[in-house]
Amino acid sequence: MLFENGDRLIFAGDSVTDMGHEGNGEGLFEAVGRGYVRVVENLLEACYPQLTLRITNAGVSGNTSRDLLARFDRDVVSRDPQWVSICIGINDVWRQFDTPAIAENAVLPEEYERNVEQMIVSVKDRVKGIFLLTPYYMEPNRDDRMRARMDEYGAICCRLAEKYGCCLVDMQAMYDRFFRYRHSSRIAWDRVHPNQMGATLMAREFLKHCEFEYNNNW
Amino acid sequence: MLFENGDRLIFAGDSVTDMGHEGNGEGLFEAVGRGYVRVVENLLEACYPQLTLRITNAGVSGNTSRDLLARFDRDVVSRDPQWVSICIGINDVWRQFDTPAIAENAVLPEEYERNVEQMIVSVKDRVKGIFLLTPYYMEPNRDDRMRARMDEYGAICCRLAEKYGCCLVDMQAMYDRFFRYRHSSRIAWDRVHPNQMGATLMAREFLKHCEFEYNNNW
Amino acid sequence: MLFENGDRLIFAGDSVTDMGHEGNGEGLFEAVGRGYVRVVENLLEACYPQLTLRITNAGVSGNTSRDLLARFDRDVVSRDPQWVSICIGINDVWRQFDTPAIAENAVLPEEYERNVEQMIVSVKDRVKGIFLLTPYYMEPNRDDRMRARMDEYGAICCRLAEKYGCCLVDMQAMYDRFFRYRHSSRIAWDRVHPNQMGATLMAREFLKHCEFEYNNNW
Amino acid sequence: MLFENGDRLIFAGDSVTDMGHEGNGEGLFEAVGRGYVRVVENLLEACYPQLTLRITNAGVSGNTSRDLLARFDRDVVSRDPQWVSICIGINDVWRQFDTPAIAENAVLPEEYERNVEQMIVSVKDRVKGIFLLTPYYMEPNRDDRMRARMDEYGAICCRLAEKYGCCLVDMQAMYDRFFRYRHSSRIAWDRVHPNQMGATLMAREFLKHCEFEYNNNW
Amino acid sequence: MLFENGDRLIFAGDSVTDMGHEGNGEGLFEAVGRGYVRVVENLLEACYPQLTLRITNAGVSGNTSRDLLARFDRDVVSRDPQWVSICIGINDVWRQFDTPAIAENAVLPEEYERNVEQMIVSVKDRVKGIFLLTPYYMEPNRDDRMRARMDEYGAICCRLAEKYGCCLVDMQAMYDRFFRYRHSSRIAWDRVHPNQMGATLMAREFLKHCEFEYNNNW
Amino acid sequence: MLFENGDRLIFAGDSVTDMGHEGNGEGLFEAVGRGYVRVVENLLEACYPQLTLRITNAGVSGNTSRDLLARFDRDVVSRDPQWVSICIGINDVWRQFDTPAIAENAVLPEEYERNVEQMIVSVKDRVKGIFLLTPYYMEPNRDDRMRARMDEYGAICCRLAEKYGCCLVDMQAMYDRFFRYRHSSRIAWDRVHPNQMGATLMAREFLKHCEFEYNNNW
Amino acid sequence: MLFENGDRLIFAGDSVTDMGHEGNGEGLFEAVGRGYVRVVENLLEACYPQLTLRITNAGVSGNTSRDLLARFDRDVVSRDPQWVSICIGINDVWRQFDTPAIAENAVLPEEYERNVEQMIVSVKDRVKGIFLLTPYYMEPNRDDRMRARMDEYGAICCRLAEKYGCCLVDMQAMYDRFFRYRHSSRIAWDRVHPNQMGATLMAREFLKHCEFEYNNNW
Amino acid sequence: MLFENGDRLIFAGDSVTDMGHEGNGEGLFEAVGRGYVRVVENLLEACYPQLTLRITNAGVSGNTSRDLLARFDRDVVSRDPQWVSICIGINDVWRQFDTPAIAENAVLPEEYERNVEQMIVSVKDRVKGIFLLTPYYMEPNRDDRMRARMDEYGAICCRLAEKYGCCLVDMQAMYDRFFRYRHSSRIAWDRVHPNQMGATLMAREFLKHCEFEYNNNW
Repeated sequence: MLFENGDRLIFAGDSVTDMGHEGNGEGLFEAVGRGYVRVVENLLEACYPQLTLRITNAGVSGNTSRDLLARFDRDVVSRDPQWVSICIGINDVWRQFDTPAIAENAVLPEEYERNVEQMIVSVKDRVKGIFLLTPYYMEPNRDDRMRARMDEYGAICCRLAEKYGCCLVDMQAMYDRFFRYRHSSRIAWDRVHPNQMGATLMAREFLKHCEFEYNNNW
Repeated sequence: MLFENGDRLIFAGDSVTDMGHEGNGEGLFEAVGRGYVRVVENLLEACYPQLTLRITNAGVSGNTSRDLLARFDRDVVSRDPQWVSICIGINDVWRQFDTPAIAENAVLPEEYERNVEQMIVSVKDRVKGIFLLTPYYMEPNRDDRMRARMDEYGAICCRLAEKYGCCLVDMQAMYDRFFRYRHSSRIAWDRVHPNQMGATLMAREFLKHCEFEYNNNW
Repeated sequence: MLFENGDRLIFAGDSVTDMGHEGNGEGLFEAVGRGYVRVVENLLEACYPQLTLRITNAGVSGNTSRDLLARFDRDVVSRDPQWVSICIGINDVWRQFDTPAIAENAVLPEEYERNVEQMIVSVKDRVKGIFLLTPYYMEPNRDDRMRARMDEYGAICCRLAEKYGCCLVDMQAMYDRFFRYRHSSRIAWDRVHPNQMGATLMAREFLKHCEFEYNNNW
Repeated sequence: MLFENGDRLIFAGDSVTDMGHEGNGEGLFEAVGRGYVRVVENLLEACYPQLTLRITNAGVSGNTSRDLLARFDRDVVSRDPQWVSICIGINDVWRQFDTPAIAENAVLPEEYERNVEQMIVSVKDRVKGIFLLTPYYMEPNRDDRMRARMDEYGAICCRLAEKYGCCLVDMQAMYDRFFRYRHSSRIAWDRVHPNQMGATLMAREFLKHCEFEYNNNW
Repeated sequence: MLFENGDRLIFAGDSVTDMGHEGNGEGLFEAVGRGYVRVVENLLEACYPQLTLRITNAGVSGNTSRDLLARFDRDVVSRDPQWVSICIGINDVWRQFDTPAIAENAVLPEEYERNVEQMIVSVKDRVKGIFLLTPYYMEPNRDDRMRARMDEYGAICCRLAEKYGCCLVDMQAMYDRFFRYRHSSRIAWDRVHPNQMGATLMAREFLKHCEFEYNNNW
Repeated sequence: MLFENGDRLIFAGDSVTDMGHEGNGEGLFEAVGRGYVRVVENLLEACYPQLTLRITNAGVSGNTSRDLLARFDRDVVSRDPQWVSICIGINDVWRQFDTPAIAENAVLPEEYERNVEQMIVSVKDRVKGIFLLTPYYMEPNRDDRMRARMDEYGAICCRLAEKYGCCLVDMQAMYDRFFRYRHSSRIAWDRVHPNQMGATLMAREFLKHCEFEYNNNW
Repeated sequence: MLFENGDRLIFAGDSVTDMGHEGNGEGLFEAVGRGYVRVVENLLEACYPQLTLRITNAGVSGNTSRDLLARFDRDVVSRDPQWVSICIGINDVWRQFDTPAIAENAVLPEEYERNVEQMIVSVKDRVKGIFLLTPYYMEPNRDDRMRARMDEYGAICCRLAEKYGCCLVDMQAMYDRFFRYRHSSRIAWDRVHPNQMGATLMAREFLKHCEFEYNNNW
Repeated sequence: MLFENGDRLIFAGDSVTDMGHEGNGEGLFEAVGRGYVRVVENLLEACYPQLTLRITNAGVSGNTSRDLLARFDRDVVSRDPQWVSICIGINDVWRQFDTPAIAENAVLPEEYERNVEQMIVSVKDRVKGIFLLTPYYMEPNRDDRMRARMDEYGAICCRLAEKYGCCLVDMQAMYDRFFRYRHSSRIAWDRVHPNQMGATLMAREFLKHCEFEYNNNW
């Protein structure tokens, strides 16, 4: 198990991470939201009750990497986590397709790379590890223009993960595999926001990189 | 102009047609819903104020062709329209992909064909014309499984339109053309329910088959 | 087509323009409100999907020309539009009739002229064109006192449009023609706020001045 | 004073009479609604506290004369009033103008006359008196099509009042006089539903026919 | 008629005056509240439509004379009325009986007298007239402790009215007369807040001092 | 202590008894309402936790003795209580004063006596005891017309209690004593519905007749 | 893996099972509720996407075994499941402690045994397997009276599971182990209704009996 | 009776004290909340109507001793009470068990002692007396970890009460006695927040230390 007793994990991101979290993003009930962060905490608690881990949801709906960067120090670095997870970029891309005329709403690849890199650099020497979750689009057709664009951002995540030794969690690849069995309409209406089944898929993919053992006995 | 003074048009369908219509589906304000039926009425009223046409929304959210058939006599035939528009089939297909385990929720192609044919037959001799709008999926990739399945249902509409002399309005083809310029995320979140821009696209496609003249002077 | 790819259009006005717009008055769903601005955007999108035009709703319910002038720089000029549409004056007049004792709520013709002129002057050298929409009252009887008063304000718009080369959109004249066929109760309860049919009438009248082609193929 | 201690007055009508009445339409607070019926009761109570009069609101929003006739026996006759007031016809006319295509919603003059006559006949021998309030349209221009139509219905009221000895309260004439001083926008948004000032105008007009003395001392 | 065209009347007071007034306390619909101020405006409008009078509700629920004095300059004097009406004192007394332990909530007679006198002095040279409405308790038994206490405050009003030439409107005396015919439970639940019948009684009593003629013809 | 382990007490009455009880009027939280019934249960539970007593609220807002009689068998007798408490009559009287014109809403003394007597007779042989709570009016002035009327009803309760050996709880007398110290405005707005202090007064008065010992040790 | 493609699982129970399920208790989003049933479905879907399993929530808040038995045929047997899970008894016990005076609300052990046995017998020959989940109380102290009582009901489940070859899922034992590490206040407020962490614990315990492999690759 | 006419009592605490109090925590209706403070006031008023005592609720939901100390001067000392009651510590303990990972939410025993001591010291020379109510957990099993922890805090209260001559009200001991007869589920869902029966138990325990006589005659 990667996490040790007393570790704090902060999950930064957009609405996929946020999912209605309340207050400081930690505590009982809806505090950590209803998305993958919650499922991660549930599985950690159910399988490792002897460990006290602090899970904090730092997602904000609608955030692009630009918005997240602007609050990264306050919402992530200054709260002294041992582990940081970053899942950002979907809105950077989405705004290029749903409201193309409002140029300032979109974040282009070069800026995206700068933004994420700056987040990594600002926190990497203070934590035990950083997880980079690729932005994804639940569209198996790689020729779809929005999917193709999203893949550019995912590739940036790959490069940055390698460059800085972050743990890459390739959510897009996981969804691609899943869609060999199921259609995207089973887990999301808009191909972006997963329902609880999708949240469970993401949490399971995340925990694969954490030496997590589901059958851990207690 | 196809429609004559005093004609009544009834639009039967599912949630794409319904879009929050109230009461009997006709009258001022939200009575005809907020979807393409409303835009059709708006454009007819704005371009032909000298004609009194009665527009009725007979869409019900969640309907499959099986549900529509069960109420077709009461909601369409018995109200004595001069023109009938049928837009059904999306839920017949969708349920096969979002809740595959609940078999009775889906309607397979053979039943779909029987259902739509029975609707046509029951009303064709009492009206001036029938419009068959193809079910669609706002997915330009024809290899997507749900799109491919939807195309089977669209093909059934084509066959039935030809067999019975209905006017075919190929919404799928219109959306395919539109997606050469725009991504689906601009007009729908779930690739099924169009926003008002999508509703306008559908209304415009419908009116192309009605000898409608936008620049009609009054 | 008057508008070119990348152009931004800002519609300034009162509740007739506003119609429940949200946030910055641009984007998907209710962001541009439910009035004529929305119908203009819908028709432009449906007929010219290859053009990316930015439509912004800058209407505020209850505004007189005095209120609009006070926010004109912030809400219109500083946002760098290529095209500006101004539809103001109804409340300037209305307050003279529904609450005659509250004198400061009304804006008299001389001030109205100064206000609108100042708006035009402040923006005319920075845009490709200005649309002046006449204030209107959906009352065909020109002897009605409020209608007669409104006509004075409409005449001011005419003079200013001519003086500064603005494009005049005579909404009052359009409604007058429409009322030869329909009663005002069909499109508004209070003879001021059009329902969706009225919004379509206004959008169509606006687009007549924009070399807009409904049948544009794509 | 026309009314005697213990008399019951029932006011039948449409939304102008109804104005949100609750339950049986009698009692304290909102029970008699917020319209002219309430103002009549208020003035009777304030000026004749020594008389116990029972005021009942039997208005129902949206009613045409056809609807009122269908419930007249249950809501009026069977409750044994000493006095009956009937104010009906506005919706009979309105539906001809706001939704002209829905023919069955309108009530034409011949039927209107039959309906009101039948009401009068059914109750006239059981009461001390019947008040017939003319339907009205707050439009001073008699050439307005809806006003002109309304005047036909008002004329029917006049004829019936004379034929059966009812007391005619000409609300249209009262409003016409009022509009010499004020614009209709001061007392109604839709030229039909009076605000509280309009309700007071109607109550005052009604009481003029009741030997009511405002300065009655007690 | 005491009031002249263009006169402004401001009604200062507590919840009895306030009765849910909105915004600035003037204008259409609920702006002037649902209490006696509204009935005064309704009767003036219905009987003198040729006069334009500006009625402003400056009541605030829960106010004692101390609270009213603190805002008197801002809410009354600085708005330049021609006529001022003051109805205050009920809460000064009430708090002595419903929450006797919270001493600072109550205002004793000496302070009450100073407060009201200061209001009168601050405005008397700038207006055509001041109305002083006695505070009241709808309790006919003069031995009731709260009624007896209220009478002390009413007596102060009498003295001040005489001293400064204000017009005294003795609401307590009017209610006493009314209760010879009716029980207080008919017009108020708490013996303080009149329902609409009580509001009409108060408006009628107020207008008696204004040379108001109900039967004024127009 | 009068009540024995396992006894069931049913409190029948009007809104004073009801006070928002939910469902069957028994169980946790708001089930027994927020009035004196609740305080009785609270005190019994706090002082005699070793006894299991079943407290049921059978009050219904607005009930007169006529209404209560109509449901007495279903709501009281058929539920097999060991003890019955009846507190009815306030609405019988109140309706005579707040809506005097609606005669059928009031219940006159003769009928009141018949109604209560019938309740007593129907249940007296099946229970260990009946409590008759006098209706009251929180008005210390016995000359007040409504108070005087209420006293007639209270006297009927006295007669019936004596005739049938019921336990009389004289709530009016208790309130009269209380008002020597406090004004009614401290415990009720309308002189009928006690707030929680009033509810405690009533519960304490009730328990005085039950051999209840507050200092009972456990 | 115990379940085969196409199998239907129905979970019968009380509020612990129900947890806000909607409609038929199956489908997307909140249809299967927010409790352990949902987590079971999420984990099955995330780990076995190639299997189509139908999960149905048949829990109803507040049910005792008596209530569940009354609807067992309609809600479980007649829907032809391959697998049935029964989790009932908590309310049978709880009502004995929170409302001891309302005897008919509780279900005693003998009846509980009859009820559950009747459920098992009615369905056992039509399914592949039955899961019996023990009722539990999140109270580690076995001397607590409610816990001790609950253990009697759990023992009945054990006996019945053995007698009829059902699969026993001992939720009480699982919680007992968990409370060696955590306090009950972490997963429930009332020691009955688990939050999402508790739901995950229950789902994991359930799946232990299903040959479920979390690390199943796809 | 400990309290004298004119005394003010302020009850400081957390949600158990707060229970929805409004505004300043004093006055009629819900102002003092719905918890034990309210029952104390009710019983004082019902048994000693001749005394005017001022009861103020200064509880705030979620407060630990750290939070209460931070506002103690503003909410308690500066309001000049004669008597102060302090009931704090439950949240200090609870946070150690429901969210163990969020260390800063909990208050450990040493800090708790300092906090309470500082409160006592800051006010003791200005009041007639201080009541210290022990924090409690409605768990009769002293081996329960949270109960055991709570007992440490209760012991601190005992020491401080003795050291400074405060009146100790041992709520934990009272509940322990009560649970010999009833299960905790009868008076609270979460073993912390008492329902109205629990509030009555607490009020009765509090008043035992006040020379309160329930049977006091007036």
